[in-house]
Amino acid sequence: MTARYVAVVGPGEGAAPEDVALAREVGALLAERGAIVLTGGLGGVMAAAVDGAGSRGGLTVGLLPGSDRSGCAAAVTIPTGLGELRNGLLVRAADALIAVGGSWGTLSEIALAMRTGVPVVVVGDGWDVSGPTDAPARARNAAEAVRAALG
Amino acid sequence: MTARYVAVVGPGEGAAPEDVALAREVGALLAERGAIVLTGGLGGVMAAAVDGAGSRGGLTVGLLPGSDRSGCAAAVTIPTGLGELRNGLLVRAADALIAVGGSWGTLSEIALAMRTGVPVVVVGDGWDVSGPTDAPARARNAAEAVRAALG
Amino acid sequence: MTARYVAVVGPGEGAAPEDVALAREVGALLAERGAIVLTGGLGGVMAAAVDGAGSRGGLTVGLLPGSDRSGCAAAVTIPTGLGELRNGLLVRAADALIAVGGSWGTLSEIALAMRTGVPVVVVGDGWDVSGPTDAPARARNAAEAVRAALG
Amino acid sequence: MTARYVAVVGPGEGAAPEDVALAREVGALLAERGAIVLTGGLGGVMAAAVDGAGSRGGLTVGLLPGSDRSGCAAAVTIPTGLGELRNGLLVRAADALIAVGGSWGTLSEIALAMRTGVPVVVVGDGWDVSGPTDAPARARNAAEAVRAALG
Repeated sequence: MTARYVAVVGPGEGAAPEDVALAREVGALLAERGAIVLTGGLGGVMAAAVDGAGSRGGLTVGLLPGSDRSGCAAAVTIPTGLGELRNGLLVRAADALIAVGGSWGTLSEIALAMRTGVPVVVVGDGWDVSGPTDAPARARNAAEAVRAALG
Repeated sequence: MTARYVAVVGPGEGAAPEDVALAREVGALLAERGAIVLTGGLGGVMAAAVDGAGSRGGLTVGLLPGSDRSGCAAAVTIPTGLGELRNGLLVRAADALIAVGGSWGTLSEIALAMRTGVPVVVVGDGWDVSGPTDAPARARNAAEAVRAALG
Repeated sequence: MTARYVAVVGPGEGAAPEDVALAREVGALLAERGAIVLTGGLGGVMAAAVDGAGSRGGLTVGLLPGSDRSGCAAAVTIPTGLGELRNGLLVRAADALIAVGGSWGTLSEIALAMRTGVPVVVVGDGWDVSGPTDAPARARNAAEAVRAALG
Repeated sequence: MTARYVAVVGPGEGAAPEDVALAREVGALLAERGAIVLTGGLGGVMAAAVDGAGSRGGLTVGLLPGSDRSGCAAAVTIPTGLGELRNGLLVRAADALIAVGGSWGTLSEIALAMRTGVPVVVVGDGWDVSGPTDAPARARNAAEAVRAALG
């Protein structure tokens, strides 16, 4: 069986402490289920998801916006140099996306995933957004989010 | 003086007729003000903005998601082959963004613009989205949208 | 009939004066034939091709590696922010490619064009490169290059 | 100490058997040295490098041109959907590049690496290319290539 790739997205520096804690738990639970954790490679929610997954021996990947891999703790770091276009790359590489908390960058990832049919789960104080005909799934906690993402 | 580049974004095929009419008017008014109209190069709102700008002799650019330029009426067509990542390219190339109507792709463009500091104006039945600390400007009609975008 | 897009590629700052003169002539001849001139938007060969095409009223497009459009004289400027990945975008958007003079960046564009089936013409003191089974066309002067590119 | 990322590039399907054997050896030696092997994720030289590295327990990454990760044996697969633009992403993510055998795609990667200052080693029947002032290093066998790449 192939591993599942789950993107954990959310605010970087300045993320709320409860979102950081939630992201760490999401990362840990994903690793326990054998999923590979994809992130945007920066701090806050992203670093916490990497940290949580790493604490359970999970494989983690950071797709960085800049051209320098330093400072990212993921096991595999890809400095894309694409700036915000790496959000689209992250969504494309993901089998599912869990959004923890909200920022405009996070919203762009939710919207791109909804647009391209990548399942989205929103957990925490994130964007409460719904389109004319559909809306991302909502989870009340990390365990529910991971179940929704992995089935 | 350098020309201003304004991205007009919104749904493609399946766009509401009133959004299509609005986009045509936005395109025409932008051309009258000497702005270059950027679009995602597909149908609906995008084609209408190109059509409106062209009717006033304006310069138009289509940044297409696919690798084929056929079917796009913009004066300059760039088949990017980037799929949804061309949304980020469109935002990056824009000095301002006018969103007409809503779709998940449109929302991704609004969010990327808000994220990167490109001024956004929403007109028509678009997304009514606001972040924790800021929100895109709202216009009631095409003239107001163009004024908000060009100053 | 749709306009043909021809990419004129070659060294930027530091280009040899004879390559700059050749690029200007290539740009002018392309414009006379109604082709749209695509370039990488920087100086040297790129700026000369834009200048030559502009002198004949031709439409010119600059796909810049950076995120800032200032300093590029093309009629349409797209600041891609993709760095060297814009070379691939330039090749993708081109119906044919004329390489004037040589640099590693130019070689990457020749190779990507050969790889993806975009016709290539090399003129001036460029790379003399041939693959196991094929090689780019060679032209002795600007007129021959433009004929080879546009048929 | 951070792991070093070495891109192993070369022809996919249709690669010469001796290049495939060489790539497998290069991958194995890189893994023994603790390097992470990056490839373009397709067959031929790319698959052989992944196979070789995997046989020594090395970590491998495939940056695929398409949007589908199936068929790539790398431990981490990123379906970029960028087509040939993923060549630039591969070069950007690499601390060094080893080219085994030659194709136009390979040449584009060598050229982009030379352009952006990523050290290049050519081994096998690859491109024999040199610019006006510099040329990629040449290695006579896999061991020499890996030593040149990792120092």
